[in-house]
Amino acid sequence: MPKLEKLTDEARAFALASLPDWSAVADPDGIHRTFRFADFTEAFAFMTRVALHAERADHHPEWSNVYNRVTITLTTHDAGGLSERDIALARLIDGIVA
Amino acid sequence: MPKLEKLTDEARAFALASLPDWSAVADPDGIHRTFRFADFTEAFAFMTRVALHAERADHHPEWSNVYNRVTITLTTHDAGGLSERDIALARLIDGIVA
Repeated sequence: MPKLEKLTDEARAFALASLPDWSAVADPDGIHRTFRFADFTEAFAFMTRVALHAERADHHPEWSNVYNRVTITLTTHDAGGLSERDIALARLIDGIVA
Repeated sequence: MPKLEKLTDEARAFALASLPDWSAVADPDGIHRTFRFADFTEAFAFMTRVALHAERADHHPEWSNVYNRVTITLTTHDAGGLSERDIALARLIDGIVA
């Protein structure tokens, strides 16, 4: 399982460079991406896939949904910021929508 | 199907009196409730039930989830505020958690 420590600045920059669709956010310290789908059923189907993966990884998104739009923030509370678990979940989410 | 018009002040007060767990919110004009569950799986199971009902009613919540917590705002954009559809969905959601 990916480590729970907060990423170093170097590791963070390296990871973010490989996740061009995600933006850094400050509060909570993490990364953020918004997804748009054709309608609510597509948005919720996506959320369901993310939910199953998140539960298996025991690492969960902070997210919101308004009709066809899903906004996800990934942060690791126990690490006080962005950790490898967030990066792993971001990659997995990108894989779902790829 | 419940009407799409914004509720009158009188109808709104009457409806809110029957939904004691919901609070009025101003922006967007609607109602709001936060739910807490044992864990993420229970929270997402609840969201899935709400999603299916919402899709059937063709009226969808604005909602967010952080682990075991789900926050729901109901408003009717096409009516410019709280409508009977929101009240109907709120009752349905209350029924799910009752």
